[in-house]
Parts: sequence; structure tokens; C-alpha cells
Amino acid sequence: MFKATIDAYLLKDSVETLSVLVDEARFRISPEGIAVRAVDPANVAMVSFDLATEAFDDFSADDCELGLDLSRVSDILGVADRDDKVHMELNEDTKKLMIQIGGFSYTLSLLDPSTIRAEPRIPQLDLPAQIVLNGKDLQKAVKAAEKISDHMLLGVEGEDFFMEAEGDTDRVKLTMSRDQLIDIKPNDTRSLFSLDYLSDIIKPASKSNEVTLHLGKDFPIKINFSIANGAGTIGYLLAPRIESD
Amino acid sequence: MFKATIDAYLLKDSVETLSVLVDEARFRISPEGIAVRAVDPANVAMVSFDLATEAFDDFSADDCELGLDLSRVSDILGVADRDDKVHMELNEDTKKLMIQIGGFSYTLSLLDPSTIRAEPRIPQLDLPAQIVLNGKDLQKAVKAAEKISDHMLLGVEGEDFFMEAEGDTDRVKLTMSRDQLIDIKPNDTRSLFSLDYLSDIIKPASKSNEVTLHLGKDFPIKINFSIANGAGTIGYLLAPRIESD
Amino acid sequence: MFKATIDAYLLKDSVETLSVLVDEARFRISPEGIAVRAVDPANVAMVSFDLATEAFDDFSADDCELGLDLSRVSDILGVADRDDKVHMELNEDTKKLMIQIGGFSYTLSLLDPSTIRAEPRIPQLDLPAQIVLNGKDLQKAVKAAEKISDHMLLGVEGEDFFMEAEGDTDRVKLTMSRDQLIDIKPNDTRSLFSLDYLSDIIKPASKSNEVTLHLGKDFPIKINFSIANGAGTIGYLLAPRIESD
Repeated sequence: MFKATIDAYLLKDSVETLSVLVDEARFRISPEGIAVRAVDPANVAMVSFDLATEAFDDFSADDCELGLDLSRVSDILGVADRDDKVHMELNEDTKKLMIQIGGFSYTLSLLDPSTIRAEPRIPQLDLPAQIVLNGKDLQKAVKAAEKISDHMLLGVEGEDFFMEAEGDTDRVKLTMSRDQLIDIKPNDTRSLFSLDYLSDIIKPASKSNEVTLHLGKDFPIKINFSIANGAGTIGYLLAPRIESD
Repeated sequence: MFKATIDAYLLKDSVETLSVLVDEARFRISPEGIAVRAVDPANVAMVSFDLATEAFDDFSADDCELGLDLSRVSDILGVADRDDKVHMELNEDTKKLMIQIGGFSYTLSLLDPSTIRAEPRIPQLDLPAQIVLNGKDLQKAVKAAEKISDHMLLGVEGEDFFMEAEGDTDRVKLTMSRDQLIDIKPNDTRSLFSLDYLSDIIKPASKSNEVTLHLGKDFPIKINFSIANGAGTIGYLLAPRIESD
Repeated sequence: MFKATIDAYLLKDSVETLSVLVDEARFRISPEGIAVRAVDPANVAMVSFDLATEAFDDFSADDCELGLDLSRVSDILGVADRDDKVHMELNEDTKKLMIQIGGFSYTLSLLDPSTIRAEPRIPQLDLPAQIVLNGKDLQKAVKAAEKISDHMLLGVEGEDFFMEAEGDTDRVKLTMSRDQLIDIKPNDTRSLFSLDYLSDIIKPASKSNEVTLHLGKDFPIKINFSIANGAGTIGYLLAPRIESD
């Protein structure tokens, strides 16, 4: 059993955080809310998505798992205005999801969850540096780096957070000191990341006023932020690239 | 003889109602105004366009027929601001149409009307159900249906008007009751239409607050609305598709 | 030595005036400001660009020449808001240009000026007619002409300036009398120009309230306007096409 009502914009934002990495996802539903763990096909990035029942206008569910084609859900949500309400209800017999938005009723076929890649194991990592900054600042740096290179170095030097990209001929560097950041737990660290992935992940993160980065030395980066006034949390884990000197 | 002045936005809207179906059209001009009857190349849809002299700032004409390339006229109108005036005058000797907009003078070559498909005969149809609704609602339903299928069912069930589309796996339905419509003359009817055509026809209709649909059982649909504060009327007739069960 | 600070929007506008004709340019820098003279690869159009030190917040330079890839500079300026300040500084040792915008530091490789086409000699021309008009009017006429033809006639007839284009079948003409122009020094003249070039040149000129045209009989046209509150001047010279009758 699954039955829930939520603001359309919240569901749109939620689906976007997943669809930057995967096309299909297993939604693990429980009386406490919805959780998704997914890895991209190349095993480079991982997302942990949690949306508690507080994010919903009403929510009642038993434990179950729904396989969803994210682009179909996006298509359907495309007709909704951002302040519309979306009502979802699982039809157990037909194994279809009924979605109601602004007078429209959709009947959406579900995917068999067993055909979707299994949930990944989330690695335990010791990432000594933490940086809290506005998502917009992160996005601006990623966009600047993209003009120069396809990789980007993120790091902490002394008390400063820096982002740097180097192309064949040109170089760009953005340094942010403690007073330009929301918070920093400094620790000399630096890791190189693919901009292909970073720029996708940054899209949903850029809407958040407070994004937390966890960094190590040539270690994966953790990018965390919350949605739905804290009722939802998103965590990305992105593997580093090897830095050549 | 033909000489007329009209608001640019009115001429733009008029040309759009025709150009969704045909590239060239015969404009039948008389002292009473302008009329066009045209069928699309596949003989699936027909448009009846009538613009009375009241729509014009000034209008004087003898009976004549002008063949126009609608995309050229659209191009020319593209330079006009919506509140510009357009002055048109036929040069009988050169068989060219002089068009003046905001300081520009265009000399537009006419097409030989005999090279354009003849006017269709408009069939007499008995369509028992009538629905009057806002053009925007119709457009929203068509856009939702396009995400699911390439055909759309329109019908009346009891006192309600419904629009429904079914894809290989998913389904969408919008039901509008009497109080969500401007008016309805109910009669159980349903017909299936190609979304290719519906979505084109809906573009000009969506600007109208009051669109009238005439529906039958597996019969063509008539879609009527007015432009230019009632001085112009547009009627589309769209053939049904065969519904497979 | 070269060191300067300028409004980002001014640098953007400056680069645009050049990049409509060339991809790379030699910036001739002196204590008085920056000058560029460039011809397009087909030798059809030429630009003279001068930006005096008054356009800068601060400016100090010895005589030197910088070779710049204009699309890279545009890319970099793309991250700037229009009211950001841009600080540039030449590193003599590395032969790189340091560019600072809103927290970002760019290190831009310079091109060897000797690999960029040499400065053209600017021909002395006797162009008897002068027309001063709003850049927007010029742009509107060019856009209207593009819908009809790939060439455009510019000329003066009596006291009026006219722009005319003729396609295989259609024709458009815009006549502007003295009271629709800012100024005119009339002299019967007419020359035909390629719209490919005119429409590119018009882009930066269209932002100017006062564009001066110098016209002759089958002679090049000079299109002059100023930027940066008069601290910068732009002059284009465009060769005529042969008019066939």
C-alpha cells in the first residue's frame, strides 16, 4: 500500500536530484518515507536520497519497492504548475501508479525493481576537510572551470577553500576564504574530479543555500544538502580522478 | 481592387490560423471582407476562415482572389510590432501586393490562385454534443496527451466532457464537469483524433477564451472560435481516426 | 607592462565589435589606450577600434602588442555580471594575461602577434553623403532585408536616406526623411552591400543611439559609432558589391 500527496515542485526537485545520475530508480517506500540509493552506470557517482513523511501533505504506506522510469515521471510533472498538488496511489492489482495533478489522472506503469541495478553499499570514508557554502557559488566555479578544462581540482589550503581548473593553455582559480564561506573545517586536502559529473550534480545543489562538501586527499567528495525544508536529504558521492603532475 | 488597413497582431493571428494547415492559400476577397477555405494536403483537416470588414481600420475591395504564400507573409509581419498598422494594396497591373508596415514598403509577388488547391466543399454533419471551454484548458490536455501517445480520445460521458490518451504502457485522462466548462450540450459521444493535427490546431485556438467543440460518435470534430472581437470566425474540421479495441 | 581595470560590460561590448569580423586580434597597447585594426579573412570588411584610457578605472601601460583569441576572452567574460570589474595584468615572464573577475583568477595564454594577420592600411575615401541615425533603425531595416535577399542597397535620394532589398520575387524598401534621422548631409549616392556582413556589423552598432554612415556611389560604406561614453570609437569599413541591372 502506498498513497501520498506532495507539492509538485518538491517532487520535481526530488526527481531531478536522481535523474542527473540514473534513468531508472528503485524507490524504497516505508511508513517513514521514501529512500533511494543509486549508482550511475559507470560506477563513478552515487546518490543517497531520503524524503521523510513531513515533506508530504499526507502519506501512508507499507514497506514496498517501486521501480520508476524517471524521464516518464518528469514528463508527467511537466504539465504541473509548481504549486499544484500531486496525488499518487499504488494500484496493487494492476501494479500501476495512479498520479493525479490538476484534474489530470495518469496511469503509470511501474518497472520491475529486480530489473533495476541493486542498491549500492555506501562506503565509510574518512574525509578530514568540510566546507559549507552557497550552492550558487559552487555552480559559478564549475561553470567557469568548464570553459577551460574537463577536470576540476577542489581543495583546502591553509584556511581557504579553492577550486581550480587547468586547460592546455589557460588556467582559472577561485579561492574562498573563511568569511566568504558559511563554514569551514580546514585540513590540507585536494582531489581532482570530472566536470561531466560535477556539473550534473551541481544543478540540483545550486538551488540550496547551504551545501556541505567533505574532502580528502585524492579521495571521493561527499556533497550534501537538504530539500523540502529539511524533510529531505540528498548526498552525492563522487569518485576522484587521478591527478597527473 | 483591394485596399485595406488592419492591426498587425490581427493579421498575424489570422495568418497563423491558416498556416497550421496549409503553406499557400486563396484569399477570396469581396466588399464584405475576406474568406478562406482550405484543406491540408492529406485531406485530414479543413479550415474556414472569415474576417469581416469590421476587423479593419479601412477596407475597400471588389470581388477578387489573391494567392498568398503564408510563410512569406509571416516573415514580413515578423518585423512589425504587434500594435503597428499594416496597410495592404493590390497593384492590378503588376499583380503584386504592396504591404506597408512602420515605414517599410514591401512588394509581394502573388501566387496564381489556380495553382493552389481549390476550395473544399464543407460537409454537412450532425454532431450531437457541444462543449464550450477555455482554449487554454484544451491546450493543456493536448500537451499532456502528447507525452503518452500520438492519438487522443475526446468525448462526452453523462454530463462530463473527457479527453483521454493511452500509450503502450501509460494512460492519462482529464475529465471536466459542467462547472469547469463554459457550457455543454451533453450527448454520449466519443471520437479519436491524431495529436499531430490537434496540437497544431490548438495553437491559435488556445488564445481564445471560448472555444466550441462539436462532437459525434466516430465523426469529425468541429473546433470553432472567433478572433478580432467577433469580426472574424475560425472553424476547423478534423477527421477522426479509427479506434481499435 | 600592462595593467588595467574596466567594467565587464564595456570589455564585453568591445570584444563583440571585433569578433563579428575576426577570431583573433592584435591589441596594440600604449600609454594612451588600446587600438585594434583588423580585416576579416575575406578582405571584405575592416574594423578600427580605439579605447582611450578614460574608459578604464585605472590603466597603466608601456607600448606593447597582445595577441588574443577573442572567443576565449568572450568565454571568460561570460562568467562576469555586467557590472563586475575586470582586472587585467600582463605577466611579462610567462607571456600570459592574468584576468581577475569577481573572485576568479584566469591565466590566459597569449597568441604570438606575428601569427595574426598584420594591421591593414586604412584607405582614404571620399564619401560625399553622411547619415546619422539610431542603431535600432538600421538593425530593423537589415532584418527586414534579410527575409527577402542576401544583398541590400543603401543610398540617398534627394533629401532622403533609403535602404532597399530585392529578392527573386519580392522587394522591400525603407525610406527615412530628414525628420526621422538624427542628421543627414545629402548627396545622391547608392551602394550595394552583402547582408552577411551588414547583419554582423549591425549587432554591436544597434546598441548605439547614434550611428554615422558615410556613403558614396558604388564605394565602401563607413559605419562609425562610439562606445564607453565617447571614450571608445568603432569604425567599420565594408566593401560594396557590384550591382547588376
